[in-house]
Amino acid sequence: MKIGVLGTGTVGATLATKLASLGHEVRMGARRATNDKATAWAESAGEGASHGTFADAAGFGEIVFHCTAGVGALAALGSARAENLAGKILVDVANPLDFSKGMPPTLFLSNDTSLGETIQRIFPEAKVVKALNTVNADVMVDPGRVPGEHDLFVCGNDAGAKVEVTRILKEWFGWKSVIDLGDITAARGMESYLLLWLRLWTVVGTPDFNVCVVR
Amino acid sequence: MKIGVLGTGTVGATLATKLASLGHEVRMGARRATNDKATAWAESAGEGASHGTFADAAGFGEIVFHCTAGVGALAALGSARAENLAGKILVDVANPLDFSKGMPPTLFLSNDTSLGETIQRIFPEAKVVKALNTVNADVMVDPGRVPGEHDLFVCGNDAGAKVEVTRILKEWFGWKSVIDLGDITAARGMESYLLLWLRLWTVVGTPDFNVCVVR
Repeated sequence: MKIGVLGTGTVGATLATKLASLGHEVRMGARRATNDKATAWAESAGEGASHGTFADAAGFGEIVFHCTAGVGALAALGSARAENLAGKILVDVANPLDFSKGMPPTLFLSNDTSLGETIQRIFPEAKVVKALNTVNADVMVDPGRVPGEHDLFVCGNDAGAKVEVTRILKEWFGWKSVIDLGDITAARGMESYLLLWLRLWTVVGTPDFNVCVVR
Repeated sequence: MKIGVLGTGTVGATLATKLASLGHEVRMGARRATNDKATAWAESAGEGASHGTFADAAGFGEIVFHCTAGVGALAALGSARAENLAGKILVDVANPLDFSKGMPPTLFLSNDTSLGETIQRIFPEAKVVKALNTVNADVMVDPGRVPGEHDLFVCGNDAGAKVEVTRILKEWFGWKSVIDLGDITAARGMESYLLLWLRLWTVVGTPDFNVCVVR
């Protein structure tokens, strides 16, 4: 499958590398086509790996992963252009983290909206599915790093898109439990949880942890 | 022990009833001493149960549980008066829920502050410990309603107060795992998690659930 990955940070690189290792054609997108990290990644990740602008990567992918971060993410993401994402699944992995006040970061969107909802509003013809933002990058693509049962969450407005993303999460990445939280407004909960996740990280001492919903 | 419970809603009543059933003297506080719910609770909850204003209940308790809710909670809580809480453990069970826009509620504080921090600022001489706000009222006092292993969180600036609250949670309420998330700023995470909790409730179909941190 042709896959676009928007973002060159740890999350983008980890997902892009995993997807390329599975034999997919992966194009990493950045604000500028000459981005150093994207160039280096494409050179090291094998035959199917390429890089370009956000618009290049979005247009290339049959499915697109959004992995940018920070307060400038939405502006940057806008340059992916709506026509490149129309009708496609856009997996929103990002968290609206604001590091401008130091550590720990705060969220710059929450409560009455979320990044996932905002992206769905910016790209109304994309099928936005929020997923993977509640675990560390390494755990996203290798959930076995955390032993035992634990859960991943998805939400989005398009039922078929969630089914397809859930299939990818299970068959490609190895997730055993994926909980559908409903429409894209559930992204508020998935993103707000990051504030607890960040504290748990300091207590647990490793980012290789997750939560299991016990009932 | 003499215990003050501030708030007459489901959370306050559930905690007050449990504490009274354990043989403690419990005074439920409300905005007005003539509050119908507090009066009815005190009449039904046995010999050690009484009721009064927030100030009455705060002054009565050797330890005080804060269980008010809603956007008016902070203003109401102010009437408990700082001198009634000075030097005491104040267990903040409340969530800053705003139901003014319907269901699901939003949080009226988050990201760069929290209800727990705000209460600690209003009552600087109280030892505020955030606890119990991440589970349903019935589960707070009967964690066995959720089978298997699952975790409760506490945070606060006073180490001794957290030790004492953890003892109460374990010995009185039956909690097996209580995770100390650090100082009171961790209340941001504990309160923000509610947005995920509310969604999980709709998916799980019962409020008798919790999360287990897996590592």
